Amino acid sequence: MKSKTAKETLSIQTKAVMPNDTNALQTLFGGSLLAWMDEICAIAAHRHCGRVVVTASINNVSFDHPILLGEFVTLEAKVSRAFNSSMEVIVDVFAEDNLGNKRKCNEAIYMFVAIDQMRRPIAVPELIPETPLEQERYDSALRRRQLSLVLAGRMKPDDASELKSIFKNS
Amino acid sequence: MKSKTAKETLSIQTKAVMPNDTNALQTLFGGSLLAWMDEICAIAAHRHCGRVVVTASINNVSFDHPILLGEFVTLEAKVSRAFNSSMEVIVDVFAEDNLGNKRKCNEAIYMFVAIDQMRRPIAVPELIPETPLEQERYDSALRRRQLSLVLAGRMKPDDASELKSIFKNS
Amino acid sequence: MKSKTAKETLSIQTKAVMPNDTNALQTLFGGSLLAWMDEICAIAAHRHCGRVVVTASINNVSFDHPILLGEFVTLEAKVSRAFNSSMEVIVDVFAEDNLGNKRKCNEAIYMFVAIDQMRRPIAVPELIPETPLEQERYDSALRRRQLSLVLAGRMKPDDASELKSIFKNS
Amino acid sequence: MKSKTAKETLSIQTKAVMPNDTNALQTLFGGSLLAWMDEICAIAAHRHCGRVVVTASINNVSFDHPILLGEFVTLEAKVSRAFNSSMEVIVDVFAEDNLGNKRKCNEAIYMFVAIDQMRRPIAVPELIPETPLEQERYDSALRRRQLSLVLAGRMKPDDASELKSIFKNS
Amino acid sequence: MKSKTAKETLSIQTKAVMPNDTNALQTLFGGSLLAWMDEICAIAAHRHCGRVVVTASINNVSFDHPILLGEFVTLEAKVSRAFNSSMEVIVDVFAEDNLGNKRKCNEAIYMFVAIDQMRRPIAVPELIPETPLEQERYDSALRRRQLSLVLAGRMKPDDASELKSIFKNS
Amino acid sequence: MKSKTAKETLSIQTKAVMPNDTNALQTLFGGSLLAWMDEICAIAAHRHCGRVVVTASINNVSFDHPILLGEFVTLEAKVSRAFNSSMEVIVDVFAEDNLGNKRKCNEAIYMFVAIDQMRRPIAVPELIPETPLEQERYDSALRRRQLSLVLAGRMKPDDASELKSIFKNS
Repeated sequence: MKSKTAKETLSIQTKAVMPNDTNALQTLFGGSLLAWMDEICAIAAHRHCGRVVVTASINNVSFDHPILLGEFVTLEAKVSRAFNSSMEVIVDVFAEDNLGNKRKCNEAIYMFVAIDQMRRPIAVPELIPETPLEQERYDSALRRRQLSLVLAGRMKPDDASELKSIFKNS
Repeated sequence: MKSKTAKETLSIQTKAVMPNDTNALQTLFGGSLLAWMDEICAIAAHRHCGRVVVTASINNVSFDHPILLGEFVTLEAKVSRAFNSSMEVIVDVFAEDNLGNKRKCNEAIYMFVAIDQMRRPIAVPELIPETPLEQERYDSALRRRQLSLVLAGRMKPDDASELKSIFKNS
Repeated sequence: MKSKTAKETLSIQTKAVMPNDTNALQTLFGGSLLAWMDEICAIAAHRHCGRVVVTASINNVSFDHPILLGEFVTLEAKVSRAFNSSMEVIVDVFAEDNLGNKRKCNEAIYMFVAIDQMRRPIAVPELIPETPLEQERYDSALRRRQLSLVLAGRMKPDDASELKSIFKNS
Repeated sequence: MKSKTAKETLSIQTKAVMPNDTNALQTLFGGSLLAWMDEICAIAAHRHCGRVVVTASINNVSFDHPILLGEFVTLEAKVSRAFNSSMEVIVDVFAEDNLGNKRKCNEAIYMFVAIDQMRRPIAVPELIPETPLEQERYDSALRRRQLSLVLAGRMKPDDASELKSIFKNS
Repeated sequence: MKSKTAKETLSIQTKAVMPNDTNALQTLFGGSLLAWMDEICAIAAHRHCGRVVVTASINNVSFDHPILLGEFVTLEAKVSRAFNSSMEVIVDVFAEDNLGNKRKCNEAIYMFVAIDQMRRPIAVPELIPETPLEQERYDSALRRRQLSLVLAGRMKPDDASELKSIFKNS
Repeated sequence: MKSKTAKETLSIQTKAVMPNDTNALQTLFGGSLLAWMDEICAIAAHRHCGRVVVTASINNVSFDHPILLGEFVTLEAKVSRAFNSSMEVIVDVFAEDNLGNKRKCNEAIYMFVAIDQMRRPIAVPELIPETPLEQERYDSALRRRQLSLVLAGRMKPDDASELKSIFKNS
């Protein structure tokens, strides 16, 4: 199985925010954005492994900056790290107003699992980070994975080496 | 502002999984489920405060059990705790096969903010838990909020009293 | 085939009215509501019999109270009576404004037929009414069925015992 | 207000049945057809009166012949009779298979009300039937209206002259 | 293979322009209209040949007259000429305001190819024009086909007899 | 008004082909692709001028290579030339199978007009081509514009200097 660079998995989608995507104050629904992010992240994960992928989890998505009716939204997704049969994908979301001003609105982290025809997990290639940002996200992916396992009760806090250091030292 | 019980915010939606909601192995897209959960959670939050609400964040959603084409999905959302202008909503998701067998598929936790006509945060009523499960979710909501604030760098780990105990004692 | 209670078939769906569901005066289209009612009634019928069900007929639906953009609509459907291979389902529709005030908007009566893989009608279990309202709807279902058969020319008015009494005595 | 002929209100829509409109046996959902019929009937009613129209009721729709995935559906709607501020519209539904064979699948009767900017009922022009079928439907529209009023408790059975004759003589 | 008249292929669709089909100035998107035209033209082509048809090309569509939110759009498509395995379809688009005034908005020319189960092109019947307009469109279809082939580099300008005359004589 | 480079207008959208976008042979509908191309081209045009844009025309789109259910489609749109108040946009369409193999499927040329709040045409900035392909498309845009004007009867063939040479010399 040939490793892939993060860049090879880059997937982009620019969309216009339509009336049915907005509430009474003409702000984009979180739900629409969540569905768009899931679609483009699934494409990035699929590009990494060439398999059917299913969403396994999402973590700590925050919607700090409202996006308005008529604005454009650009989603840029890249695989940040591959584990056995799973891939972490980070998507950056930018909004763009009528004057062409772009602003980062939020980012989200999706975890996907590759499955075979019987819907069983199947191994995926390794992910190679190249840029400093890709490397940073590659490193922190392990910490997030431990946090997720601890919260799900599938790893003892004591074994979460990456995670413990954050709190032990405080 | 009159307090409300968790029960008063209960919002339910049963849907059938359609072809456009599924991938090549006829498994429900995470993105469709995320959008449905956001909609019903927003309804629960709106029932609590009677204001326009916007999704602020979602945390640690896992999709452990695949849901198939043609199955029914029932989403049950209730506000678990209210903070100043924000509300935590927990949604339980159940799938139901052709024989009527129901299974819990996953749960997700959404945070909403109530906003006024100028899109500024606005105070919401208190939430009163009644059942043991409502009480448990009410209590743990504070822990989740601290974790979220710590991870976002808006609270020092040292101040996250609820959270520290988990790791300190391990 | 095990009988089921009306309560076991209860199916609920709360939805927000979106721009594409409304006309120029921001009133919900009858067509959108008809489609929503059909979906939730089909789910109720399916829960009763565990078979693929197809809509056979709908009767005397009136839309007396307009529902507005941004309001919530709650549909509550229950099987009211089962015949050989068909089931009558009654759906109650409630709208809810921003202040949380609920009002009954209308009710509709759908008839479904259970079919097998060859699309032939197939027997369904009996329906057991429990509450006074369920009993009343169970009783009147027979009258509606006779009216439907008479109007379709498939029953002689003289044989429609339940129905005749209404007009004979007038 | 200038009267209009039934022909002037004729509204036609041919559609292909898509995957999301069908159930597990690839039969068209009643709900999709109900929504399509409502849309084309509303267009016919609007053509009659030039006002915003809202669905008031539908009566005795039966779905006797299944329509399959990939078939075409043609809906032909015409106003059958105008009352004070309401219009009865009858829609005929035809399906067409791959060989071009057409079959009548069902018909449905929708009642619409014309409303002004304040959502109050407003008078509509008279409808002039021309063909024998248009005349027959024009005549029977009165009978249906009486049945509807009697069933709604807004007309005494004794006053429903058109309707009584059906049952009195049996 | 039995020839068909242009009239036998006539396919009509009237639709209301909805919020999600319009931009910030409430003008119908070209993209929505293009998709609607493709659907009704495909139905016309299918009616001609009874086969699965795929869009091969579209030519010189202009959108000269804006169509507004809430207006009705009527699309009328007819096959204008059949070649070996392809069919040219012309669709006329009319808009209709609240007063019932209709105006021709644009026309478009789609080319479809009939394909078999292996997705290979397959022969289609001849098309018989009857009215003067059908005859004119039948004749000009050859000119358009030559222009298309020349522009695609699949016919030498010198062999495009119909086309050359336009420019040679100028 | 500041000129913009072609690169500044680049707009990208990757999508997965869903069941409702395909026909009975699971080939992508031309109509869906036309709508997607219109959306991403409108975004490119909007990025060039910062105004509401409406589709004015599309020319000679051919669909030579079928795209299948489950494949990804990437659309890349760039403004190729600006005229007074109009912009020509060229979109390249690539499909991508499960093995990650990409193939160019087709390209299309859309013309947009920038409009003000009164829906009147309004001037747009100049477009600066940089790469050889951008330059080639910039040059040929004039030829296409002349062809379009001639075919629409708004320019005499004799005045279409760019265009005449193609046929005069043959």
